Amino acid sequence: MRRLGIHSFVWTGGQTQEGLEMALEKSAEHGYRCIEFAYLRPELFDLDRLAKRSQALDVQIGVTMGLPNDKDISSGDPDAVAAGRAMLSDAVRAVRDIGGDKLGGILYSAHMKYGRAPTRDGWMSSAEVIGEIGREASEAGVMLTLELVNRFESNLLNTTAQGLKFLEDCGNPDVTLHMDTFHMQIEEADPAQAIRMAGDKLGYFHIGESNRGYLGCGTIQWEPIFDALLDIGYDRDVVFESFSTAVVDEGLSLACAIWRDTWDDNDPLAAHAKQFIELKHAEAKRRRDTNARP
Amino acid sequence: MRRLGIHSFVWTGGQTQEGLEMALEKSAEHGYRCIEFAYLRPELFDLDRLAKRSQALDVQIGVTMGLPNDKDISSGDPDAVAAGRAMLSDAVRAVRDIGGDKLGGILYSAHMKYGRAPTRDGWMSSAEVIGEIGREASEAGVMLTLELVNRFESNLLNTTAQGLKFLEDCGNPDVTLHMDTFHMQIEEADPAQAIRMAGDKLGYFHIGESNRGYLGCGTIQWEPIFDALLDIGYDRDVVFESFSTAVVDEGLSLACAIWRDTWDDNDPLAAHAKQFIELKHAEAKRRRDTNARP
Amino acid sequence: MRRLGIHSFVWTGGQTQEGLEMALEKSAEHGYRCIEFAYLRPELFDLDRLAKRSQALDVQIGVTMGLPNDKDISSGDPDAVAAGRAMLSDAVRAVRDIGGDKLGGILYSAHMKYGRAPTRDGWMSSAEVIGEIGREASEAGVMLTLELVNRFESNLLNTTAQGLKFLEDCGNPDVTLHMDTFHMQIEEADPAQAIRMAGDKLGYFHIGESNRGYLGCGTIQWEPIFDALLDIGYDRDVVFESFSTAVVDEGLSLACAIWRDTWDDNDPLAAHAKQFIELKHAEAKRRRDTNARP
Amino acid sequence: MRRLGIHSFVWTGGQTQEGLEMALEKSAEHGYRCIEFAYLRPELFDLDRLAKRSQALDVQIGVTMGLPNDKDISSGDPDAVAAGRAMLSDAVRAVRDIGGDKLGGILYSAHMKYGRAPTRDGWMSSAEVIGEIGREASEAGVMLTLELVNRFESNLLNTTAQGLKFLEDCGNPDVTLHMDTFHMQIEEADPAQAIRMAGDKLGYFHIGESNRGYLGCGTIQWEPIFDALLDIGYDRDVVFESFSTAVVDEGLSLACAIWRDTWDDNDPLAAHAKQFIELKHAEAKRRRDTNARP
Repeated sequence: MRRLGIHSFVWTGGQTQEGLEMALEKSAEHGYRCIEFAYLRPELFDLDRLAKRSQALDVQIGVTMGLPNDKDISSGDPDAVAAGRAMLSDAVRAVRDIGGDKLGGILYSAHMKYGRAPTRDGWMSSAEVIGEIGREASEAGVMLTLELVNRFESNLLNTTAQGLKFLEDCGNPDVTLHMDTFHMQIEEADPAQAIRMAGDKLGYFHIGESNRGYLGCGTIQWEPIFDALLDIGYDRDVVFESFSTAVVDEGLSLACAIWRDTWDDNDPLAAHAKQFIELKHAEAKRRRDTNARP
Repeated sequence: MRRLGIHSFVWTGGQTQEGLEMALEKSAEHGYRCIEFAYLRPELFDLDRLAKRSQALDVQIGVTMGLPNDKDISSGDPDAVAAGRAMLSDAVRAVRDIGGDKLGGILYSAHMKYGRAPTRDGWMSSAEVIGEIGREASEAGVMLTLELVNRFESNLLNTTAQGLKFLEDCGNPDVTLHMDTFHMQIEEADPAQAIRMAGDKLGYFHIGESNRGYLGCGTIQWEPIFDALLDIGYDRDVVFESFSTAVVDEGLSLACAIWRDTWDDNDPLAAHAKQFIELKHAEAKRRRDTNARP
Repeated sequence: MRRLGIHSFVWTGGQTQEGLEMALEKSAEHGYRCIEFAYLRPELFDLDRLAKRSQALDVQIGVTMGLPNDKDISSGDPDAVAAGRAMLSDAVRAVRDIGGDKLGGILYSAHMKYGRAPTRDGWMSSAEVIGEIGREASEAGVMLTLELVNRFESNLLNTTAQGLKFLEDCGNPDVTLHMDTFHMQIEEADPAQAIRMAGDKLGYFHIGESNRGYLGCGTIQWEPIFDALLDIGYDRDVVFESFSTAVVDEGLSLACAIWRDTWDDNDPLAAHAKQFIELKHAEAKRRRDTNARP
Repeated sequence: MRRLGIHSFVWTGGQTQEGLEMALEKSAEHGYRCIEFAYLRPELFDLDRLAKRSQALDVQIGVTMGLPNDKDISSGDPDAVAAGRAMLSDAVRAVRDIGGDKLGGILYSAHMKYGRAPTRDGWMSSAEVIGEIGREASEAGVMLTLELVNRFESNLLNTTAQGLKFLEDCGNPDVTLHMDTFHMQIEEADPAQAIRMAGDKLGYFHIGESNRGYLGCGTIQWEPIFDALLDIGYDRDVVFESFSTAVVDEGLSLACAIWRDTWDDNDPLAAHAKQFIELKHAEAKRRRDTNARP
């Protein structure tokens, strides 16, 4: 992995400029070298100032988002598709302006519990838009990376196999997959095998526990996941994500169904996550080296 | 475990009398000794005939359901609470009339992805209704058993600890918990420990894989779960549940977000599940016996 | 995997012709398509008759052995090296004469708990002999396959990395590695990774539980092992091995330190092992297929 | 757990007074609060000086040993039994004199790969001696604790069930079991269940990886083990053990079959082990707390 990062929602609900700057500082203090922001409307925040703080602190910014229902590019509704395309285009520019290097998340559909099955036409329409936005992103120096999420947060791309097929249909080799251990734990038959299958199409990686709380306090078997990341020589960013009712963005909390506190205090959470990930990564390397030494 | 059963949705979408009778026969053919039906409106089905088929085939019927949004007894809306109470009361009678021995599922709230956080008042109101319906159920010879489900299918009872607290607030010792491996894999820090914590309050047990497909084809670690069932001396029913787009009830499919086929053919699925569960159960017993033998 | 087999010591201590013929028949009855014998001295057994029974029953014979201390080709003692070379040469001919297709086990050292550390000279001397015997074996249509065993049963080749290095030093591309889950569980940092590392050098595979008893009644995590065998496209034989005091060859029992009964009755053991291995193999294939299906 | 400790063989082969004092200091430096020594012949070491260093550094000393073949109290040879009894009696006094609080290890038989099966008479004779020595130990303020080891290091007590039966036959309620994850990984059908079965008879606990190297670099599943220690409320000492050819006592290396380096540098090993154990322990507590919180 290149840089280890943390989601800003560990620090702040993200509604204010001050909150975001504090999040950058807290991340840097804890030794994280990248941070994930939700999409920031340029008219509400001073993106340039955030870009400068990020550079000064040496904390790389990435952005993730999910489309709202009325801008769903997989909906088959031409107005929604046009609105979604415009929103994604705006987002790419905002990521560039904030000094970000990637735009991830549920870019290909709404972020919601669907009440209808996906359609072939919706898939193709979404793939076409993503292919085009991917070109805008490449020109802006931003990587477009599509998050594979569980069935309750989108009806379109729930597995790596679907993601890889979708990338083919996009026809844009720059677009990558954004994988997340929380979602894989629900959807993949074998998360480690999914990582190996993704290979160099894996563009961004979320580490979150099965109940979105403390790492090691859920059902995920971490060893095979860290082994698989080594197997594919993954060298992009890894970001820790955890949600609690203690710190929240209300919209995301409802979309992600966060009803319970899995923690109250974010400082020990962030310190533990860093220690946990670094230890697991080092252990995977040591297993590999030990196995290979005659 | 007492009897090993299977959910009727492996066999049928459940819309017709013929479908339900076929499901009873298929279950019996495969050697299952109980079956789970969704709530059946008495005006649409011949419950008496189903009761007789069930007896003749020696396949015990159980029923599960989730409340609709407009009958949500945790909603705080008096009309919805009254409608929910009436629906549960009807359901208890229908279970009795079909010869069923249990009513499980999401009886305490709507079965849906909530767009709002739960409230203390909603919890208490739901507990009160469940306590009362529990008494009607006991009189009817039916066990009321509350399913703990993942955050995307209810906002009220997601974990065993919540379920045990809710049982206290119901004040009815006959009401039990209905636990499900699919949901526990998302919500519990440690599913096996949750089973031990539930102890004799565990009234009904669903075995489903993490992606709701073939057992052994997901992320669940089965050994600790079967060990824990032995540890608590669990002696009630165990039912296999799997959903695919191949056989569906549309309402349940949308509520459960079933977008993909995890299987096409239900006969090998049912045969495999029976073999898998019996093998795992026998292995857990053998581990225990071997460990204890000096 | 090609054929699923069973070790003859599940059926017989192996001291009599009748015992060996019975073992062939029992293996065939249970549906096993190969069997493993210990080295049989040609003067004591009717090898030709065994070869014919094996053909008639369509149960392929393989042979394994460990060198005795006074014939240790890694000992540095020229007399022992010469005696070991002669014994291996005899064994290759006996395997050919019994219609066997492989000679495995601890061919490169004594099968014992060593009281001294291995030496570089002993390693090189052993590698040289194995390279030569490998050529005799190839001419006889027999595969030489070197079993990697735990530290208490040899001091020379305990890990796959050591085995691969030893194959290089043998300089004979026909010689392969014989891996065993019981031994890997003690010695490898990651057994599944060791299988991937071995790749097409894996010539023979033993499936045994961590305590040498019933499969699933020990500490081995089977899923990654079956996944890894699929990953490397393993298409040679797999043999189930279990030892108990109930059926024994005294020499092997002492070498393997079998002090306890892990089973009394071999028929259910053999039936369970076959079901267990076939189920795990099928599940690994299904995980792979499911993971790959968009 | 009460105190976290480390085996002195991580630091020193144990042949000199200086080596042992250095080991005490290194352990203290790394934050370990107890240390394990092998049996020290009082005529060769200044036990009183070690006792004072241990007190000054607040590092509690414990001692473990295995009987030699000619002092095997399970051998059935009266001379060996008498010699073994005398050696154990001496050892108890030496532990007292060094300020130690426990005498563990293979006290009930020789520490070796046996070439013969255990006998009923040997078991009973050993149990009688252990019962008596246990009384001497209690009077000396020393806990006698019997290590359950794998089949290659003793033929008498390989499992917890055997250990518990042996304690009954000793008839001395003060004698306890000394369990070790390395040995359990080979012998127990379910190590966590074995810990629960031992309950308050567990007197001392060794944490070692399956290949005796770095924790997390082997096949042991640690989570259930730490959960089980919490389940039984284990409140005695836990000691990390790892052997490499880098630092050795020759006798122990041969008895334990240490042929390979699993590490070269003991400082990072000791630091990692402490971090690993504390993290796993904290995670087990957090799982338990999270599971219990409604």
